[in-house]
Amino acid sequence: MTATRLPAQLIRAKRDGEELTDAELRAVMAAITDGSIPDYQVSALLMAIFFRGLSDRELATWADAMVRSGDVLDLSAIARAKVDKHSTGGVGDKISLPLAPAVAACGVAVPMVSGRGLGHTGGTLDKLEAIPGFRVDLSVERFTQLVDELGVCLIGQTARIAPADKRLYALRDVTGTIESIPLIASSIMSKKLAEGIDGLVLDCKVGRGAFMKKLPDARALCAAIRTIGEAAGKRVTCVLTQMDAPIGTHVGNALEVVETIEVLRGGGPDDTRELTIALGAEMLVLGGVARDAADGAARIAAALDDGRALAVFRRLVEAQGGDPRVCDAPDEVLPRARVTEVIAAERDGVVARLDAEAIGIAGVWLGAGRRTKEDAIDPAAGVVLAAREGGLVRRGQPLATLHHDEPGADRVAQARALVAGAISVDERITAWPRRSRVIEVLRGTLAP
Amino acid sequence: MTATRLPAQLIRAKRDGEELTDAELRAVMAAITDGSIPDYQVSALLMAIFFRGLSDRELATWADAMVRSGDVLDLSAIARAKVDKHSTGGVGDKISLPLAPAVAACGVAVPMVSGRGLGHTGGTLDKLEAIPGFRVDLSVERFTQLVDELGVCLIGQTARIAPADKRLYALRDVTGTIESIPLIASSIMSKKLAEGIDGLVLDCKVGRGAFMKKLPDARALCAAIRTIGEAAGKRVTCVLTQMDAPIGTHVGNALEVVETIEVLRGGGPDDTRELTIALGAEMLVLGGVARDAADGAARIAAALDDGRALAVFRRLVEAQGGDPRVCDAPDEVLPRARVTEVIAAERDGVVARLDAEAIGIAGVWLGAGRRTKEDAIDPAAGVVLAAREGGLVRRGQPLATLHHDEPGADRVAQARALVAGAISVDERITAWPRRSRVIEVLRGTLAP
Repeated sequence: MTATRLPAQLIRAKRDGEELTDAELRAVMAAITDGSIPDYQVSALLMAIFFRGLSDRELATWADAMVRSGDVLDLSAIARAKVDKHSTGGVGDKISLPLAPAVAACGVAVPMVSGRGLGHTGGTLDKLEAIPGFRVDLSVERFTQLVDELGVCLIGQTARIAPADKRLYALRDVTGTIESIPLIASSIMSKKLAEGIDGLVLDCKVGRGAFMKKLPDARALCAAIRTIGEAAGKRVTCVLTQMDAPIGTHVGNALEVVETIEVLRGGGPDDTRELTIALGAEMLVLGGVARDAADGAARIAAALDDGRALAVFRRLVEAQGGDPRVCDAPDEVLPRARVTEVIAAERDGVVARLDAEAIGIAGVWLGAGRRTKEDAIDPAAGVVLAAREGGLVRRGQPLATLHHDEPGADRVAQARALVAGAISVDERITAWPRRSRVIEVLRGTLAP
Repeated sequence: MTATRLPAQLIRAKRDGEELTDAELRAVMAAITDGSIPDYQVSALLMAIFFRGLSDRELATWADAMVRSGDVLDLSAIARAKVDKHSTGGVGDKISLPLAPAVAACGVAVPMVSGRGLGHTGGTLDKLEAIPGFRVDLSVERFTQLVDELGVCLIGQTARIAPADKRLYALRDVTGTIESIPLIASSIMSKKLAEGIDGLVLDCKVGRGAFMKKLPDARALCAAIRTIGEAAGKRVTCVLTQMDAPIGTHVGNALEVVETIEVLRGGGPDDTRELTIALGAEMLVLGGVARDAADGAARIAAALDDGRALAVFRRLVEAQGGDPRVCDAPDEVLPRARVTEVIAAERDGVVARLDAEAIGIAGVWLGAGRRTKEDAIDPAAGVVLAAREGGLVRRGQPLATLHHDEPGADRVAQARALVAGAISVDERITAWPRRSRVIEVLRGTLAP
């Protein structure tokens, strides 16, 4: 701590609603990084920030100090624009898998550093690792090389990226300070800004199955993300997307790769394809390849439909050690569950509600996710939905299929009950057309 | 932790304004006491309590759990009523020293567990230890015996009294969570309720030199203290007293013993005597010895004037190992500073302001107090005031005398500047009569 005020004084100042100076915030972050401020002072400061927030200046400085707590990748040798996408986390959210190769196929480089699943939401790394042989622990040199050669590479976070975020996140997790907009925004951006990107598209999920249940909270998070991004000189577009029901039909790691291949073949569920195209379009706009979102959407759709996106994905899988035949025969290459079990409709009617969070938790019980960071996952486990919100079903017709490797009768029973309860069939209403997943898009500079 | 909810969940619940159950509060306190909850979770919970407060039920349970974290003295063998006084801390606040023997002389037992000074306020133990030989580390058995035989004993807190408070206080001190009414009130009461008393008089200081600067805050603290006390079945009277200027004339450990002896001889400064009588009167009422406050005041005044209070003090000093001749010749028995230095008035006028906090801090610089818990103190050091608020002074006349043993030129210069700045002489106003120190008295049960 090189600030003039002691840590306890800074905590009191923030507690009482005072703004801290840039020098004070940087001194705190340096002390968080080198361990010279104890956990009990950090957690008290985090709780004070939970209640008092951070001003835009404080937020930008705090996030920048988090980025500088570790290494920033230098991708300046790569001539193409470099744009990444981050999702705040959903159920069945496999969008990064078809998106990254589709965007790369259109000429924008995608240096993507992803995370693992925790709780009811999945993680891109776990999905990729369901492909036999796929490795996400490449060196920074190999990562840079693949981004240059293929236009895309997907790896896990290294210990050298934003180490202050690691300490802060672990502490927030056990001290009731997760749900703070400035702390969430700075945590996301500390990792993304360390990737050496030119622009970022944030897919901010809103709804029952999302971290942000309400639109105003999601908008506040987007504003904080944009404040940090623009202070760092990066272009940021936020896409708010609906996350009440799971995305697409497949939930679970290998199962989501199956759906990914469908999308990369120009097919797949409407909403998975819609999100891939909408987010990809914004990435092409930020990367300067598309004139506008409509132009970007047409380019992404074409790359999905004419096989260029799948070709990039095939090269990516092969370059990262995975079995490229996954692109041709996913059912043969990917691990498959020993047991599948159909849940059938008990009456005729319309699916009035399909609860993403319950489906996500069912997946965790089946082995697709982790309850604690130490849990192992079963790549084959998960849920495949036959029912869609607003769709007609008939009594006895399948609503969903559970996939599992017998993790225990209790766990399967829990999952069965959750999935059955997650799908409400109503006899009194009529089918309705699917809504767009995209709620709104926030582009360009922040309004004054 | 035996509560169903995990610590992080309890922190989140409190953070969001939820009341915790009694079982949850007791489980948290047990974990604080046995160390099974880490500091970083405790400090986050304390910050959440800072912002959200505790309901009356939560407050009573929290304080009771703190009391039960350690031993509760059993003074049931002593037939007399047992009443203690606690002050929230002032400058020149030596009231416990004449008060305890005066109350004991009137027939109410005073089992007093006191603290040491920290910051700008002094501590009763430090003042008593200025008397050569005086020991405050008596065993519980000896303490009980002296309370029975003399009606009074003054000791320090033992490690077995409210150990949860020790951990909480140390953590609050470094995490910006000191200034919380429920946390202050429970800290005070956890120690007082462990004394095995029947009643308590709280001297709640208000003003520039007090912890509580504003009357509404002081009233809120009194309400919290009474909530805890009455839930524990104890009678509590709160006396709000003015703490802008130092109490009496002497500030510093041996110096305050000198003033104490004056009061015990029926003399002393008006305000020191007034506070001793007002607080003692309430203690006699709580102890059932006086009909009302006026009757109690007459009894205390008589005990001071006729030498009975001094006689008890003499026996107390002797029983606790001190030199009883301090009662006859305090100047000879008590340590005296090598250097005394007069600060004189620079103009004729009226003392418009006498800042207790500045005088208190000057005392610390001279060696009378501690800046950290590890600091040693100089019993002889301090400040003796000649000026009183509202009093006339003439140019060249002494305002105050510094007493010190040459702690260093810088420190003395600091003290000199502080004392000179603390005493404002105004030529344009006329002298005014002294106000009563007592602002209001809150007796009996809380209003519904």
